[in-house]
Amino acid sequence: MGDENFTYIDFDTLKELEKDCFIGMGVPNEDAGICADVIFEADKKGIDSHGCGRLFMYYARIRRKQQNPVTKIDLERDFGATARLSANNGMGQVVSHKAMQLAIDKAKKFGIGMVSVGESNHYGIAGYYSLLASQQGCIGITGTNARPSIAPTWGVEPMLGTNPLTIAIPTDWDFDWFADHATSITQRGKIEMYARLNKEVTKGWVINSSGENPTDANQILKDMLDKKAALNPLGGSGEDLGGYKGYNYATLVEILSAALSSANFLQSCLGFEVKKGEKVFVPYRLGHFFIAINVEAFVELNTFKKTVGEILRQIAGSKKQPGADHIYIAGEKEFIIEQKRKNIGVPVSEATQLQMLQMIDELKLDTSKYNIEWKVKYDSSEVDSQGW
Amino acid sequence: MGDENFTYIDFDTLKELEKDCFIGMGVPNEDAGICADVIFEADKKGIDSHGCGRLFMYYARIRRKQQNPVTKIDLERDFGATARLSANNGMGQVVSHKAMQLAIDKAKKFGIGMVSVGESNHYGIAGYYSLLASQQGCIGITGTNARPSIAPTWGVEPMLGTNPLTIAIPTDWDFDWFADHATSITQRGKIEMYARLNKEVTKGWVINSSGENPTDANQILKDMLDKKAALNPLGGSGEDLGGYKGYNYATLVEILSAALSSANFLQSCLGFEVKKGEKVFVPYRLGHFFIAINVEAFVELNTFKKTVGEILRQIAGSKKQPGADHIYIAGEKEFIIEQKRKNIGVPVSEATQLQMLQMIDELKLDTSKYNIEWKVKYDSSEVDSQGW
Repeated sequence: MGDENFTYIDFDTLKELEKDCFIGMGVPNEDAGICADVIFEADKKGIDSHGCGRLFMYYARIRRKQQNPVTKIDLERDFGATARLSANNGMGQVVSHKAMQLAIDKAKKFGIGMVSVGESNHYGIAGYYSLLASQQGCIGITGTNARPSIAPTWGVEPMLGTNPLTIAIPTDWDFDWFADHATSITQRGKIEMYARLNKEVTKGWVINSSGENPTDANQILKDMLDKKAALNPLGGSGEDLGGYKGYNYATLVEILSAALSSANFLQSCLGFEVKKGEKVFVPYRLGHFFIAINVEAFVELNTFKKTVGEILRQIAGSKKQPGADHIYIAGEKEFIIEQKRKNIGVPVSEATQLQMLQMIDELKLDTSKYNIEWKVKYDSSEVDSQGW
Repeated sequence: MGDENFTYIDFDTLKELEKDCFIGMGVPNEDAGICADVIFEADKKGIDSHGCGRLFMYYARIRRKQQNPVTKIDLERDFGATARLSANNGMGQVVSHKAMQLAIDKAKKFGIGMVSVGESNHYGIAGYYSLLASQQGCIGITGTNARPSIAPTWGVEPMLGTNPLTIAIPTDWDFDWFADHATSITQRGKIEMYARLNKEVTKGWVINSSGENPTDANQILKDMLDKKAALNPLGGSGEDLGGYKGYNYATLVEILSAALSSANFLQSCLGFEVKKGEKVFVPYRLGHFFIAINVEAFVELNTFKKTVGEILRQIAGSKKQPGADHIYIAGEKEFIIEQKRKNIGVPVSEATQLQMLQMIDELKLDTSKYNIEWKVKYDSSEVDSQGW
């Protein structure tokens, strides 16, 4: 992000500010704690596409009444080791925290548990919920659908969400094995970053309506809005490098998210409709799913952790490419970043600082609480309130 | 496969021959029916890497006493919606059929079921077991580890198996949604096919110890044996095109297969050891896992099938690349092939015909039963019995 004017905010301050923002938006105190926790998990781990930079997105959606700050959860089905919840267009983080905990509780009782969620919203980093399970001796699996981005193999239109399939597994390492990523090669946020830097994106990330793999980041963003470009699934365009596998995994996540609950799917997940030429915001009605597998139902937990740890040690210790100095284990990079940020704080970009200052101003938060050295000046008269 | 001298064997005859071969190997009658069913499913669907061409592999392993034709299954754990089985080095197909059916039975009772299997062997196409679940109103998921083939991201050594992560889902289409593929880009069998045709493989399928992506199929096969080349995970070498995601999914399958049961993992899945310079065959001790999700626990089955069907219709109907005439749904290509082969029979290559004739000869099967027009001549004096 080049020479952006970062400020570094320490863990406790950032988390408090995030919670206060959610409370300011009308999210009840306990729920605000959960929402802040999910965002902060991303901040800590360096998953910056889903950290404090996303706070304003929830603010915008709540402010324009697209989603409810108060989450009324309905238990629509409860059958043995499974359950189905509706979030009634409330906070995705709140219903998802509850859903994974319910899956874990069921796993403790039945060995495995699964909960589906409908009528929901963006739930933050998927990995948060998987980790909730792995921290309680379970293998945690979760996925969600999202606004259309990925084209199917041989297609060019954004149809499937970036649909993460996310897993966390207990180990005897210093961190849990933790794979949190989209079933596309990359995500829109990364292309936006390349656009800001005027850098070409990697060939193969994107397909356009001519069937080409364009690299001009600014043109791609424009074309994606016009449905003239879409993200490629993991494996890329066509079938030569296995693109149909990524497309299938994205479809799996779409089905598990939308068809086991009451949720929108594919292009109905846009969040707006065009009525008489006007863009009208509507609820996203996303779906998610949560699976917890109780390790102790199969093997003793410590034995399992040792076996997993040994698998990972053998992989990490295998022969490297010339020039490569490290084979990473899923979750390792995030662990390294967390250790570093514990000391230096979380880097917050200029753009995010401005959004935070706007929220502090408009939500009338008490700034004297936060000991933050802002690197930007906020002027409320310059705020663009278009699209509210 | 160019101008190979195929014979076409009709469905009933082929299945009977396959069953008779397994019986000849010492597999009990009912178990032989299951083993034949698994192989035949691949024959029908055109998954020719796992069809009748694989029959001889089981024959070889049983004959050299590497695996037992009689499968003694132990129920090692049974807890709520979960169970753990040991195959005691018997037939992978037999224990896996039982394991998935147990997971389905548990899913009917608890909404979801999961069964892990250890001390097992090659279980044929993973998709067979997923389909067993989808045909009974469940979402079926299964995976297995296998002999080391895939290098981790930034590594060059074959460590992980091709580790399929396989799913089948009920739909209102003429076939179930059915994704049965490895977490590598491709598999060894495909490279062998390219070698026979003297064709270069696609750049990116393989990584060698210099960190290059070689394309010479014959050289690759040689290097893979010497651990100087390995398959790339889905997403390819390095991180640019998301290779770490494929590597993570392969690792997930390795962990779920090996760490929830008593099974080997990574390079201990080779099936042989070198003792005093001699290659000694040892059991593979593979692990598998099976998950069944009972759709009715979440939504009415017909509603689910319609929703899934509609998701697939919208994907299939989306805008195509210039020059592409069809967007395929997982399972569609297999369905098309099955319709065709119903009429023309299953094409069997010269090499496989020779193997079949050898088994017929050595197992003393009654050839008059099978109305097959062999396109090759079998001569028992030419048989290479090296490696038995």
